[in-house]
Amino acid sequence: MVDVTAKPATSRTAVAHSFVRMQRATVGSVRRLKSPKGDPLEIARIAGITAAKRTSELIPLCHPLALTHVDVRAKLCQNGIEITSSATATGPTGVEMEALVGASVAALTIYDMCKALERGMEITELYLVKKSGGRSGTYVRSAAGARKRGKA
Amino acid sequence: MVDVTAKPATSRTAVAHSFVRMQRATVGSVRRLKSPKGDPLEIARIAGITAAKRTSELIPLCHPLALTHVDVRAKLCQNGIEITSSATATGPTGVEMEALVGASVAALTIYDMCKALERGMEITELYLVKKSGGRSGTYVRSAAGARKRGKA
Amino acid sequence: MVDVTAKPATSRTAVAHSFVRMQRATVGSVRRLKSPKGDPLEIARIAGITAAKRTSELIPLCHPLALTHVDVRAKLCQNGIEITSSATATGPTGVEMEALVGASVAALTIYDMCKALERGMEITELYLVKKSGGRSGTYVRSAAGARKRGKA
Amino acid sequence: MVDVTAKPATSRTAVAHSFVRMQRATVGSVRRLKSPKGDPLEIARIAGITAAKRTSELIPLCHPLALTHVDVRAKLCQNGIEITSSATATGPTGVEMEALVGASVAALTIYDMCKALERGMEITELYLVKKSGGRSGTYVRSAAGARKRGKA
Amino acid sequence: MVDVTAKPATSRTAVAHSFVRMQRATVGSVRRLKSPKGDPLEIARIAGITAAKRTSELIPLCHPLALTHVDVRAKLCQNGIEITSSATATGPTGVEMEALVGASVAALTIYDMCKALERGMEITELYLVKKSGGRSGTYVRSAAGARKRGKA
Amino acid sequence: MVDVTAKPATSRTAVAHSFVRMQRATVGSVRRLKSPKGDPLEIARIAGITAAKRTSELIPLCHPLALTHVDVRAKLCQNGIEITSSATATGPTGVEMEALVGASVAALTIYDMCKALERGMEITELYLVKKSGGRSGTYVRSAAGARKRGKA
Repeated sequence: MVDVTAKPATSRTAVAHSFVRMQRATVGSVRRLKSPKGDPLEIARIAGITAAKRTSELIPLCHPLALTHVDVRAKLCQNGIEITSSATATGPTGVEMEALVGASVAALTIYDMCKALERGMEITELYLVKKSGGRSGTYVRSAAGARKRGKA
Repeated sequence: MVDVTAKPATSRTAVAHSFVRMQRATVGSVRRLKSPKGDPLEIARIAGITAAKRTSELIPLCHPLALTHVDVRAKLCQNGIEITSSATATGPTGVEMEALVGASVAALTIYDMCKALERGMEITELYLVKKSGGRSGTYVRSAAGARKRGKA
Repeated sequence: MVDVTAKPATSRTAVAHSFVRMQRATVGSVRRLKSPKGDPLEIARIAGITAAKRTSELIPLCHPLALTHVDVRAKLCQNGIEITSSATATGPTGVEMEALVGASVAALTIYDMCKALERGMEITELYLVKKSGGRSGTYVRSAAGARKRGKA
Repeated sequence: MVDVTAKPATSRTAVAHSFVRMQRATVGSVRRLKSPKGDPLEIARIAGITAAKRTSELIPLCHPLALTHVDVRAKLCQNGIEITSSATATGPTGVEMEALVGASVAALTIYDMCKALERGMEITELYLVKKSGGRSGTYVRSAAGARKRGKA
Repeated sequence: MVDVTAKPATSRTAVAHSFVRMQRATVGSVRRLKSPKGDPLEIARIAGITAAKRTSELIPLCHPLALTHVDVRAKLCQNGIEITSSATATGPTGVEMEALVGASVAALTIYDMCKALERGMEITELYLVKKSGGRSGTYVRSAAGARKRGKA
Repeated sequence: MVDVTAKPATSRTAVAHSFVRMQRATVGSVRRLKSPKGDPLEIARIAGITAAKRTSELIPLCHPLALTHVDVRAKLCQNGIEITSSATATGPTGVEMEALVGASVAALTIYDMCKALERGMEITELYLVKKSGGRSGTYVRSAAGARKRGKA
């Protein structure tokens, strides 16, 4: 584990992205599933937030952090569900992993809820969109990444 | 949660795949990092296995299962690291999510260990390769998926 | 911990009840909150199901059980939110605690989401409604309990 | 999750209450059970403290907090066991949920340990007694609540 | 992880031992501490049982098992506290690790509760006393181990 | 739980030691096992670090702490494997338990990986080597402890 004892506690933010690619028929079913057995997007959101808080249990060399904010949003697209996850903390190390874990578990939850409809779904484009704070400063994913996302 | 009380306990297996795309220089560093601070592939393997056992804590509507086997393998490729994860249990429901969680957390662990080298890495192609057992029988991902993987 | 090694694995079910008493104005707000920041009833449902699966971590002398079904329902009433939680497993011991933990954590989640509106809410009437299976057979809460609930 | 990033870290305290209502014969048994298989009040106390520390895992939109103190007390009464739980932390958000989770899991643990004696026990009067710190200042439950407790 | 899918589910038992060596004055304090702030032996017992149930989360290549019994006993000796922990399950693999984790965490809990009195305490003699069940049959620690224990 | 609310947050460090005593033949096997099924020393290291982060879940009266560094090292000796674990945090209370939990779970992991070779292994000499920070200042284990270690 990297020793972050000597690093000052500063405000850190990170945003991550993931995408669950599925057939249009499955997207339609997700939209309609909203009423009877629960809304997959809302359950994915809650699962992602809850998992982000447990990042240091899942990722062996991650530091525990007192997150001050986590948010996960899931949006229906034509060919799948796009997830954006953000995390914030004031601490000596960044929150990239927390944002990525949130986006990842939200996507897995959608897979779980839709797998009876389509087993071939694929989780893809899980990446860091941006992060700020800390010695390495601000990172923003380049246009190449954005273009790639456009193809999804 | 789907009620699986009346379903018979049968042997279930699932295999999942994920890929961490990175620059060739980063792949080279991962290879060399093996000695000083620990082997990223081995740490990812352990993280994936450990996480697979906790799938029902992470995915809200997943049933707890007594897994009889979990394996995660991480392999260096030219442009990234390919992960294969498998899970087995004897129970009333399948182990697809356990295999997918294993592949996902192994990939996130690699991201964590390499993020100082390249923040732009992308986790992609997380999908079910095959599963067997249960009423729905055997599923094998079609050639289209395989072709896609080839392009990675 | 009671030794249940010699007891046969049979099908067990339990249903639990809880009630979050709140002012009518708060009930009205919960109904309207559904859209902007998430549906408190749905989030409580997910939290209750997830917690029920972790009962043996929370209650020191509870046995771990492979639950085959958990369900939590939250319903808006005039003066609060009524929660019903059920759990099922095939095993050597009962699932009363799993149902009670589900009802309890769902109620606490509602408190958490509504506490900015009314700190004086009270969680009450957390009890076992019925259970079946096992050597002690079926238990159904008597009419006195039902009457009590009517007053809520 | 509410974003508390901009809120100053101040000292926060909360006290919660719960009550496990049981028959007098059961109260008597709890008193006598102290010697052979462990003291239910002590086990409940430990379970409540341990659970309070995991509040952010159980309640989806709760922030993780570095608690500096948790205490749970369980007291035998004529018709049940009264639990008082307190939590303290220095942070940007309150500890009401931590105190309530402590009181709730301590009560559930008592239910678990006594359920062979009386399945009809009821957990009731789980509420916030008081809290201090933070922008909303001090809250003390009004006399109506106290009166209600008197009736228990 | 060893693949135990093909192994039959049989009854498995294991007993483990640990010892917390401390000065006589500390042993005396533990005896007297029983009243004011809680009984260290009882808290250690509960901590050990609870941890044994989470063995597969702590030990990376351990299989999850539905334990049917766990017991931990802590006994004051002249020069320390002796802990015996037992675990039982019906499953395809043994419960040695569960018994050892129980004995280990109980010992650590005693260290935690007594460290203000004596930081130099040492946890020692953590070993498997016996195990039964499974293809490898019964194991009983030899007299050499017993003799060693006698010296403690 | 000791109330540490009023104590200032200072930098705290602790180092712990443990030893897994095994036969020379087993030590030799551990050395050779490195290639096929994973390196036991590396897996023990990861297990120890991960467990240290969860100390407050395992030890009932331990405060949760935001660790800024954890390290675990395992070294092959003639008659066993020696483990050194260190933990650091800035907080109102010490990190002795975190270091001890790391050393303990690393040792248990080695036991788990080698138990098919030798069930009679013994975990011993788990103690605090030193700690610094806090009101009680620096503690260094005396030469007697060191001598003892020499005998291992």
